[in-house]
Amino acid sequence: MASVLIREAKEGDCGNILRLIRELAEYEKLSDQVKISEEALRADGFGENPFYHCLVAEILPAPGEPQGPCVVGYGLYYFIYSTWKGRNIYLEDIYVKPEYRGQGIGSKIIKKVAEVALDKGCSQLRLAVLDWNKGAMDLYKALGAQDLTEAEGWHCFRFEGEAMRELAGK
Amino acid sequence: MASVLIREAKEGDCGNILRLIRELAEYEKLSDQVKISEEALRADGFGENPFYHCLVAEILPAPGEPQGPCVVGYGLYYFIYSTWKGRNIYLEDIYVKPEYRGQGIGSKIIKKVAEVALDKGCSQLRLAVLDWNKGAMDLYKALGAQDLTEAEGWHCFRFEGEAMRELAGK
Repeated sequence: MASVLIREAKEGDCGNILRLIRELAEYEKLSDQVKISEEALRADGFGENPFYHCLVAEILPAPGEPQGPCVVGYGLYYFIYSTWKGRNIYLEDIYVKPEYRGQGIGSKIIKKVAEVALDKGCSQLRLAVLDWNKGAMDLYKALGAQDLTEAEGWHCFRFEGEAMRELAGK
Repeated sequence: MASVLIREAKEGDCGNILRLIRELAEYEKLSDQVKISEEALRADGFGENPFYHCLVAEILPAPGEPQGPCVVGYGLYYFIYSTWKGRNIYLEDIYVKPEYRGQGIGSKIIKKVAEVALDKGCSQLRLAVLDWNKGAMDLYKALGAQDLTEAEGWHCFRFEGEAMRELAGK
């Protein structure tokens, strides 16, 4: 049987990661918002001071199986800063292709991100979830996450495009 | 009359910033969560690769007035990464002391953060607001922000402490 390897992404994975980013945005019904390119992902994640870090889930075929390794999921994160707790990690995206779900690959990715967080001295791992994505919400709660929108009333706000230029007076 | 200067924080401002962080957490009714120290703020914000950036609002006394400059507000932000849009800015905290509100100081801070964002090629400025803080919600909406929890259903989730250690299997 094929096995799953969770590993750090390499620059050569960016094409696969971009395909998965687009799939995730389609799943979230927000695919018109994706403007990123493979070149930007390469430049931003693999320079001297990377803007993000990424894990990929790779299916390794069993010996004798014909196909090569295949990237079927990813978790993209970066370091943030809490004025209450100091340096922390934000999991921007986590995604597993539909046909590979139910095997615990998503849990493996998020567990690995938590390991990185602890190794780097972070005490929090934050993420955002869409309220209609009950499967994801239930999984994160089962893994011990707190829904801060529900518990404390936090709302996510965003300035973008024309609103941001107006705000900056430009 | 005294005037207001919005400027980049210096390392020597960290004592004042910590006092304001504690005031903001009290206002948010979450002050038991503040664990940061002045030393950590100094080390994390003013090294070679700072984990955060900060603006402060300083009241400059009119000529002849006795008191020295006084920090009455701050905006603390860092760079994040959107898999849809690339590099962006997150405004973690924005606060103005109650006795200095109603003079547009908060708006000046957030406008300056938007300027920095555009200068750095960011297309989004994100932040989180507590739902009972109607004054802040109304201000951000009036300035052009979108409430993504309301519009798209995003919920903020967090793993912390024991839950994070369990997740990482440590």
